[in-house]
Amino acid sequence: MSVFTPVSEQELARWLGNYSLGAVREFTPIAAGIENTNYFVTTSQGRYVLTLFERLPADELPFYLGLMSHLARHGIPCPAPIADLGDSFLSTLNGKPAALVTRLPGGSMEHPGLDACTELGGLLARMHLAGRSYGGYLENPRGPQWRRMAAQAVRGFLDGERQALLDEEMRFQSLYRFPDLPRGPVHADLFRDNALFDGGRLSGVIDFYFAGVDCQLFDCAVCVNDWCLADAGADRRLDEPRTLAFLRAYSAVRPFTALERGAWPVMLRAAALRFWLSRLYDFHLPRPGMLVHAHDPEHFRDILSLRAADPAPWT
Amino acid sequence: MSVFTPVSEQELARWLGNYSLGAVREFTPIAAGIENTNYFVTTSQGRYVLTLFERLPADELPFYLGLMSHLARHGIPCPAPIADLGDSFLSTLNGKPAALVTRLPGGSMEHPGLDACTELGGLLARMHLAGRSYGGYLENPRGPQWRRMAAQAVRGFLDGERQALLDEEMRFQSLYRFPDLPRGPVHADLFRDNALFDGGRLSGVIDFYFAGVDCQLFDCAVCVNDWCLADAGADRRLDEPRTLAFLRAYSAVRPFTALERGAWPVMLRAAALRFWLSRLYDFHLPRPGMLVHAHDPEHFRDILSLRAADPAPWT
Repeated sequence: MSVFTPVSEQELARWLGNYSLGAVREFTPIAAGIENTNYFVTTSQGRYVLTLFERLPADELPFYLGLMSHLARHGIPCPAPIADLGDSFLSTLNGKPAALVTRLPGGSMEHPGLDACTELGGLLARMHLAGRSYGGYLENPRGPQWRRMAAQAVRGFLDGERQALLDEEMRFQSLYRFPDLPRGPVHADLFRDNALFDGGRLSGVIDFYFAGVDCQLFDCAVCVNDWCLADAGADRRLDEPRTLAFLRAYSAVRPFTALERGAWPVMLRAAALRFWLSRLYDFHLPRPGMLVHAHDPEHFRDILSLRAADPAPWT
Repeated sequence: MSVFTPVSEQELARWLGNYSLGAVREFTPIAAGIENTNYFVTTSQGRYVLTLFERLPADELPFYLGLMSHLARHGIPCPAPIADLGDSFLSTLNGKPAALVTRLPGGSMEHPGLDACTELGGLLARMHLAGRSYGGYLENPRGPQWRRMAAQAVRGFLDGERQALLDEEMRFQSLYRFPDLPRGPVHADLFRDNALFDGGRLSGVIDFYFAGVDCQLFDCAVCVNDWCLADAGADRRLDEPRTLAFLRAYSAVRPFTALERGAWPVMLRAAALRFWLSRLYDFHLPRPGMLVHAHDPEHFRDILSLRAADPAPWT
């Protein structure tokens, strides 16, 4: 990761004095994660994750923390931010904005089957419904404007074939805006490693730091492009039974509109483009000190090509 | 209990359609509780308690639900109210105000030992600190004004000896007001059956429907009068080791002020008086249909007499 802020046990104990969580029992740095410094913290009260924000703009943090808190109080299994004695979710630790959230049980599932996709569809729809009453607002930080900036920045690093794919997709997506699709807060990064399963049940959704307000269908497309690939991902086409299981479970809770059904092939491409672009950006324009976790951009180029070549109708 | 409102599975399922909790898996009435109708509800999302409020004034309910929500987001293990899709904790079910809260693990402990009293002291202090930033306000509904009303209502039912004890205690308590003791939201009913233990650890505090703003030391006195009796309660005097364990654990988190140490013997009597009065009231003036759970008033008469006769200094 780019930066990792060390925190000593003494510093943590002093900082936790401003919370109602009791004494520290365990304190362990978490190696995963490329954007923030994270620690597992266990106190006499419970299990938490401490995050020191290394990169996110400070003025966006209240949106993310407020959204998690809002969803948690609607019963969505997501990390619930803990308020300090000043009743704030956000404070400062070793010079960095810092927050403490509940630690959810379970672990991520590498090869989700039909049941897992069904659970995910239902939970995502419930999350979207619960999110509608959230008062915070932040435009999806990886939306159309960012897409244009990123495409411009990475285009020069690509060969002719990839430039053509990028140009064509940017042109294609610019034809669509979908102002009439249902919108609201979306997770926008609900890959398999951001969902926790415990005893086969979906026990939590984590990492809301790419969330924003966008089409809810975009969230579905992000999920399907990661969860429902054929042949455990070796084939980047969609596995129809798992895709159908996800969409049916979702629409049983929040039925898709006719416009959403029509927009689905475009949205699958938009979701693939977004991650192709960010991976290209991180690969060709890494931030200083960013070494680990540079995901392969080609994975999403393949997905984008396949979705563009075979615009599957509503499955 | 006085009233029990039946709810059918169909009525529950329709009502839950306004929440983000998935489908009902289990639905069981809870026999305990004398004030409200309670059900255990398990959905595909989690475990909850549904409460239909039978007696509490509707305008007080937001204070209780808001307090639980406030404490929960500070990490205090208490039932967290679930917001519906309209973002409200309170709605109507079968004509009654109704709310859904998370169901905590664990069960109550009949004979708490030193460790349990230590855990309770620490948690109560953390709860008091976290409660200070709560914006809601409700004067303790069983405070001095209610005490005068209740004493007047029950006095005529008592024999001479008990009348004398009541008169003397009312006179004694009227000498004290303690405007300078630390105040804030207090549970005010934290008996052993309102605390849950799971694997020997205090896993939750429940039933906030007698909460109000009062001296925090009053909360301590209510606890000690129930948790720390000698000889498993057969002797109504205080067991010194457990009382000390409670007080030390509390003051390690929130140190008592000098005024609080001085007020302690008075507060133990005030807490005993409050429950003697309410039990006398429920015994002699039961609400229509109220049959079960009439606690023996004599238990708290004994406690009051003992605390008055032997005003133990700060232990």
